[in-house]
Amino acid sequence: MATSKPPAPRSDTKAPRTERGRQTLRKLLDAAAKEFGEKGFHEASISGITRRAGTALGSFYTYFDSKDEIFRALVKDMSGQVAAHAGKAVTPELAPFEVERVALHAFLEFARDNKEIYRIIDEAEFVDPASFREHYETTARRILERLKKGEAAGDLREGMDEAHAWAIMGMNVFLGLRYSVWDEGRESDRVADLANAMLRHGIGRD
Amino acid sequence: MATSKPPAPRSDTKAPRTERGRQTLRKLLDAAAKEFGEKGFHEASISGITRRAGTALGSFYTYFDSKDEIFRALVKDMSGQVAAHAGKAVTPELAPFEVERVALHAFLEFARDNKEIYRIIDEAEFVDPASFREHYETTARRILERLKKGEAAGDLREGMDEAHAWAIMGMNVFLGLRYSVWDEGRESDRVADLANAMLRHGIGRD
Repeated sequence: MATSKPPAPRSDTKAPRTERGRQTLRKLLDAAAKEFGEKGFHEASISGITRRAGTALGSFYTYFDSKDEIFRALVKDMSGQVAAHAGKAVTPELAPFEVERVALHAFLEFARDNKEIYRIIDEAEFVDPASFREHYETTARRILERLKKGEAAGDLREGMDEAHAWAIMGMNVFLGLRYSVWDEGRESDRVADLANAMLRHGIGRD
Repeated sequence: MATSKPPAPRSDTKAPRTERGRQTLRKLLDAAAKEFGEKGFHEASISGITRRAGTALGSFYTYFDSKDEIFRALVKDMSGQVAAHAGKAVTPELAPFEVERVALHAFLEFARDNKEIYRIIDEAEFVDPASFREHYETTARRILERLKKGEAAGDLREGMDEAHAWAIMGMNVFLGLRYSVWDEGRESDRVADLANAMLRHGIGRD
């Protein structure tokens, strides 16, 4: 997690009013990512989070009421970080397929540097199903928006559909699991190129 | 789960020697799928499994030593059932892309009828990471074999790679989550057609 970037205020956390408060909240979320990522939700503890964050226990309760609450905030935060990371890499002058390549590449690099994201988002399926679902629905919506734009620009085939977005999201998630989380190799470029060629032309010979 | 089909003997369970034993083992695994699927691993209990199976507690211990052991056997069994279900649908005369379409369609139907499979395989990431990994590595290997065959037959582009297999697996898993588990609609045909067209020709207009 980029410790320098303060999180956006969220409706389900008590939003900090000062810069110092924003930094504390960022530290707590980064520490929570490590604690939940290493121990899993059930073994993780609030005191483990504040110890890692180097903050007093009281600071925790300034922002969160419970372990469940910081977990929920963390899933939202990670979901936002993935989006921000891809968003930063995607610049306005890029052509539609270049956008998909760059977004996948950014995701692969992000997952390599933040391997705990898989464990946390996947555990949300059990700990907080609503957050799990929201993460994927939001991500798919964002991909579909890009596809519709590419369709309107004449670069993508007509009829871009929600199912295309889910298929692309699934590709990206599994490539990240295989090549960023399970494998340490620096393959992001090769994998992003291969997936992008597949997306653009398919794998049929005709 | 198809209660009629006895499971293949497994090295990690005490293989039944009689037809009656095979039926009991099948009942236990089907009951375990329901128990783990509804309650999750931690809340599930051995007595809950035998109650659902309508067997005595002693029968459980004839085949398994613990809740962990039947969970592990169940992941392997479900992984095998998915493979068998797709394998049955794929007939030798099908062309390579037709094979992929039929395999995805069979998976979507299987997931719709056995929604608990997602929860169980996904929970294996936490309860039994080796089984989780083995399921996906085995599935990807099977897909890659099909792709190589299609490449050799001249229907698929040259250079079919493990990453293609992981991308296709990811597509299939996420389409199943969205359209078979989360959505009750009978969309398997439409989704399989759309994904297959995407795989064959890509979504690029050129």
